[in-house]
Amino acid sequence: MAITYRDSGVDIEEGDRLVERIKPHAKKTMRPEVMAGIGGFASLVSLPKGYREPILVSGTDGVGTKLKVAFLAGRHDTIGQDLVAMCVNDVACTGAEPLFFLDYFGTGKLSSDQAADVVAGIADGCAKAGCALVGGETAELPGFYAPGEYDLAGFCVGVVEKSEVIDGKRVQVGDVVIGLPSSGLHSNGYSLARKVLLEAKGMKLDERPEALGGRTLGEALLEPTTIYVRDLLALRRSGVDVRSMSHITGGGLVGNVPRTLPDGTKAMLDSKAWKIPAIFEMIREGGDVPADDMLQTFNLGIGFTIIVPRSDEGPALQLLRGRGIDAVTIGEIQAGSGEATCEIK
Amino acid sequence: MAITYRDSGVDIEEGDRLVERIKPHAKKTMRPEVMAGIGGFASLVSLPKGYREPILVSGTDGVGTKLKVAFLAGRHDTIGQDLVAMCVNDVACTGAEPLFFLDYFGTGKLSSDQAADVVAGIADGCAKAGCALVGGETAELPGFYAPGEYDLAGFCVGVVEKSEVIDGKRVQVGDVVIGLPSSGLHSNGYSLARKVLLEAKGMKLDERPEALGGRTLGEALLEPTTIYVRDLLALRRSGVDVRSMSHITGGGLVGNVPRTLPDGTKAMLDSKAWKIPAIFEMIREGGDVPADDMLQTFNLGIGFTIIVPRSDEGPALQLLRGRGIDAVTIGEIQAGSGEATCEIK
Repeated sequence: MAITYRDSGVDIEEGDRLVERIKPHAKKTMRPEVMAGIGGFASLVSLPKGYREPILVSGTDGVGTKLKVAFLAGRHDTIGQDLVAMCVNDVACTGAEPLFFLDYFGTGKLSSDQAADVVAGIADGCAKAGCALVGGETAELPGFYAPGEYDLAGFCVGVVEKSEVIDGKRVQVGDVVIGLPSSGLHSNGYSLARKVLLEAKGMKLDERPEALGGRTLGEALLEPTTIYVRDLLALRRSGVDVRSMSHITGGGLVGNVPRTLPDGTKAMLDSKAWKIPAIFEMIREGGDVPADDMLQTFNLGIGFTIIVPRSDEGPALQLLRGRGIDAVTIGEIQAGSGEATCEIK
Repeated sequence: MAITYRDSGVDIEEGDRLVERIKPHAKKTMRPEVMAGIGGFASLVSLPKGYREPILVSGTDGVGTKLKVAFLAGRHDTIGQDLVAMCVNDVACTGAEPLFFLDYFGTGKLSSDQAADVVAGIADGCAKAGCALVGGETAELPGFYAPGEYDLAGFCVGVVEKSEVIDGKRVQVGDVVIGLPSSGLHSNGYSLARKVLLEAKGMKLDERPEALGGRTLGEALLEPTTIYVRDLLALRRSGVDVRSMSHITGGGLVGNVPRTLPDGTKAMLDSKAWKIPAIFEMIREGGDVPADDMLQTFNLGIGFTIIVPRSDEGPALQLLRGRGIDAVTIGEIQAGSGEATCEIK
């Protein structure tokens, strides 16, 4: 009995079908700098005009076990935006403009329908971030993933003028911390959220808990991660002196705000400055989750922070609110002892 | 009973331990262009000096089910080189110099020992390719992977002067195809190889089949993918007119050589020009695998091809052999009808 490659569980034709379905999605995200995208050995992208000393800014991330919620709900067209958001929001923290994106999709048995949904969401996210989807890898790995499941990784490269890199070094005592609202859990803390809500409380994704105001639990949990990129670029172009930016991911506010603070400072945040969304309260109450675990796992309603001098607080809030973002001042920079920290009162 | 983040299966401290173990490995791969590497929200890299119109070349890849062999063998310090090789050899096909690399490591329960071995191999590969390991994501996804298993994705960015991009357009009838030897299966065809050797034939990784000349089957199957980058850069710097380069991955010679040939040409390869290594014969015989499946799945001993004008054949072979590479002429470019193809006699 002859054994063929197909017998070993790899379906080359399904992969080829997928590539053809990806191309129109990728095309929607194109930028003039893209010289060669999907299909070649590698993707070629020139630098945008006008940079004197361009710095390449790169990041990689996944979406964690939010994927398990997508599997359970059988909904695959939004998780791609999460993947893009996790990468481009990180890149944007340096002041960079995201330029291009590549994805890795690993699965046990390739379904081009499912994968095309995922990639359509990735393309949506890229369009929102203004970066081009230039490549990706679809890996069919028989025996690696449970049937119908997959993992995702994203990679983003952006560019920033060297003299305009934001690294937090100019943050001073008296500066203010502005918080931008998250759309929900974003892409962090899903192992804990699922354990509490779906396991301990036995809730179903199609339930409509009163606290969620008509939405199902599945809709709330799958709400795509906000992409802040265009608003951040608009803020910087407006002339506001942005001194530090933090994407609030795993580690929460206390873990992420200090990542770009200079030694000898601390961010003192006031959690009464914003309303913690209902989904987080459901998790806290449902699992009697300790406050520190909540704080170090979830964004609690603030998905991104920006530090500006107090003189720029008004203009920054005005610009962001004019763009429809419910930005609020959530704290200030105080003198700290030694290492930078973040405290929440 | 309070539920903590740790209860949900995510061990933040193990992740922190891993980051500390990765840093010295990453440090060995640093380049002067790296401004900020592992630890920040994103990695910052400037462009090497001397580029007038720099083009960014990017690629992403995984290592497929070669990982299953690594799991079976309990050996995790070489698969990282495979990951780097799969990405940098693709990027190098355009004539680019690889600049930096990021990795994604997804696992069910993080073992910092295992992950540190993987990353050490990635750093080794980056050092061989001359590119800096500037970042990565370690994702702990409870319930996604079988115990002890993981998946990997790699991402590489290189740079090439716009006027020096190699895209195959200058390939002409009469040019010669030079083949560079592979070290083994590289990172393709493992689902088929495992099905034939480990399942159908019931072989064990610690067997020493006579054909493998003293090596175990596990050693032969885990042999890391060759990184061709430095040799390709040396070849170009020598003044040889390199017109096309192909990394021979999934699809084999017939699938990959035409990817950079202009329409109206074909590559006519002579499989008698090189000796197909024993491991491929073991798979073919063991599974009675049809010739087309062998040809479209495996590199069959040639891991990379270079197309040069006949006048440069001698200098190219001399330079490569002087660097210890058993390069051989394996075919020539002939007129074809319409689309570019590759035939093997």
